[in-house]
Order: sequence, then structure tokens, then C-alpha cells
Amino acid sequence: MNQSPGVVDLLGVLAYAELSAFLRLAEDAALLAPTLGDRAALGELAVAEYGHFKLLSRKLGEIGADPDAAMAPFVESLDAWHAQTRPADWLQALVKAYVGTGIALDFYREAARRLDPAIAALVDEVLVDEGRSEFAVERVRAALEADPTAAGRLALWARRLVGEALSQGQRVAAERPELARLLVEAVAEDQAEISRLFARLTEAHGKRMAAMGI
Amino acid sequence: MNQSPGVVDLLGVLAYAELSAFLRLAEDAALLAPTLGDRAALGELAVAEYGHFKLLSRKLGEIGADPDAAMAPFVESLDAWHAQTRPADWLQALVKAYVGTGIALDFYREAARRLDPAIAALVDEVLVDEGRSEFAVERVRAALEADPTAAGRLALWARRLVGEALSQGQRVAAERPELARLLVEAVAEDQAEISRLFARLTEAHGKRMAAMGI
Repeated sequence: MNQSPGVVDLLGVLAYAELSAFLRLAEDAALLAPTLGDRAALGELAVAEYGHFKLLSRKLGEIGADPDAAMAPFVESLDAWHAQTRPADWLQALVKAYVGTGIALDFYREAARRLDPAIAALVDEVLVDEGRSEFAVERVRAALEADPTAAGRLALWARRLVGEALSQGQRVAAERPELARLLVEAVAEDQAEISRLFARLTEAHGKRMAAMGI
Repeated sequence: MNQSPGVVDLLGVLAYAELSAFLRLAEDAALLAPTLGDRAALGELAVAEYGHFKLLSRKLGEIGADPDAAMAPFVESLDAWHAQTRPADWLQALVKAYVGTGIALDFYREAARRLDPAIAALVDEVLVDEGRSEFAVERVRAALEADPTAAGRLALWARRLVGEALSQGQRVAAERPELARLLVEAVAEDQAEISRLFARLTEAHGKRMAAMGI
């Protein structure tokens, strides 16, 4: 089929991001949730990520790509991100589920819009939040009301999540120069657009932090 | 609402069995799956278990029970079963997903039929396999064709899964004497029925073992 170059890469990295988010959220739910209700709630977020993975995997099949092959180049970087951002407790798990995932998904959305408007709609659909994050926001806010001193620790944690995401992003860019080149070219003709992109990502991240009270 | 006694207990143990199966299968998928396709396939089994958990949790709510409170008495025993049957490799994970879960679900089905025919239909619906186990059967058969010597090791593993399930079952019976009494009374009037129950469970287990080639 007639595909914009880079589309298979983008859908592949997204598909593996969703598959690994599903598995890691389930692991966090099993290991860190303080109550059965919390375990079920984080489990539900995990299941939603799996649904996204299925949509992306099907889309890859429809455009004639092998989903496993499309995901393979990104397994190492995404697994490394998860290994380096393994939550030590329940609050860290919630912040990771909301803030860490949030900034990654914002980036994927921007990238899709630049690469190929035809897949931007699918990506938007796949990445819709559906109010699932309310759960994490409420729990973190309540914890910080009970213990305001935890805010500094969680702010550091959020910074680490974003820092590790940036460093894995650079690794992907180095390993997939074609994908990186396409993304850069898509914005490079307009230097101001790069600034606006970063401003949008930073603003959305700040809103998520504020929503949690961090 | 007018509930047969023991129904909340039975739905509670089943709900937690499904929730913990979901989380453990996801963990096995993350840690042990040799390929991305395998990871996604075991992930899909995990997500199906979560769907069952949701149905049971909703049913508990409908009959006026608190799902968390209904599950709580069974958390320790089921977590202990999972801790003692943590698969060491991918084949052990598949055998656990198919054989270990299979015998537990057969038992729940029999128990539901005895306790209250009204919930037997729901339990049957929740526990329907939907051909999901084909995946595990195919993979184990293929592995044993490539290496027939693994069969003995996997047969021992299956025996351990069942042995640990029996010992946790005895623990639950000791901790929930009311539930145990109801189940025993439901069959005690007919000694032959107890034999038939065990014969059915054993036969179904043997069929699963044979299907896998163990």
C-alpha cells in the first residue's frame, strides 16, 4: 500500500509503547496497590492500554506491515525506560501512569499529525484518555493533602520520568535516523513551529503536574 | 436481597481469582514470553480474565455486596498459590495458564451449581473459555515435538500446580467453614455424587494434559 514513510515506524513504536504500558501497569497494580479497589482501578487502566495496542496492531496489519517486525526496533528503548522508571511505591506508580504516559502520548500525537494526517485520526482515537486518568489524579491529590511533604519527592520523580523519556527518545532517534529525519523535516521549515511544539508539550505536562497538586 | 448463603463467598473468591490471574498472566507475559507475538497472546488471555473480574464484581454489587470485602478473605490464599507456582520459563507459564487455571475453574463451576442454580448461569458465562486456551495448547505441543524430553518436567510442574491448589483449597475451607460446610452438605447426602465430582474434575484435567501432549 501507498504509505508515507515513517508511518510504520510510528505505529510500531506506539503499539509497543501500549503493549509495554499494559504489562507494566498490571505489574504495578499487582505489586504496589494498597487496596483491592486500587488494584482493580490500575488494572482497568492497564486493560485500556491493551485495547489501544490491539487497534494499532490491527492497523499495522491493514497497511501490510507485520506488527511484530514494526515493534521490534523499539523494544529495547522502551523496556529500558520502564526498567529505569520502576516505581518504588504506589504514588510513584500513579504519577508514572498519569504524567509519564501523558507526555509520551502528547509527543506521539504531535508526531502523527506531522507524518501523515491520515493516521493522525487513528492515533487520536487510540490515545484518547476517556477520563481514565481522573483516578490517578484524585488519589495523588488526596495523598498530598494528607502529607504535603511528599510533593517535593514526587516532583523529582516526575522530572526523572521525563528526563529518562528524553534520553530514550534520543536513543530511538539515533537508531532510526529515517524516522528522526522525517520528524525534523516536518517542522524544520518553520523554526517557530519547533518552539511552539515544545511549548505545547511543556504546557500540557505542567497542567498534569498542577492537576495532581505537585 | 435474598441470597443463598455462601454465594457472596463464592463470587468473592472467583472475582479475586480472576483479578489475580489477570495480573499474574500479564507479569508472565512481560517476563517470560519469547516473542512479541507470544507476549501479546498471553496479554490477551490476561485481559479476558480482567473482563471476567469486572462481570463478577458488578454481580456482587447488584446483590448488595461490597466487592472488595467479598474478595478480601481469599487474597492471602490465592496470592500464596501464585507465589508458590511462579513459572520459571515460558512453557511453565503456558501450562499454568491452561492446566492450573482450568482445574480451578472447573471446581468453581461445580461449586456454583451446588450452591445456587441462579448464579450457576453467570458463573458459566464468566468462565467460558472462548477458545483462548488453543493458543497455549498449540505452543506447548510444538515445543514438545521439538524436545520430547521436556514432557516429564512439565508433567511434574502440572502436578505441583494441582497439589498447591489443593493445599490452598484446604486452607480456604479451614478459614471459611461456612462455605466449606455448604459445599459439603450440597453433596454429602449422596456419597456417590462426591466420587462423581472428583471423577469429573480428574477427567477434565487429564484431557487438558493430553491436549498439551504431556
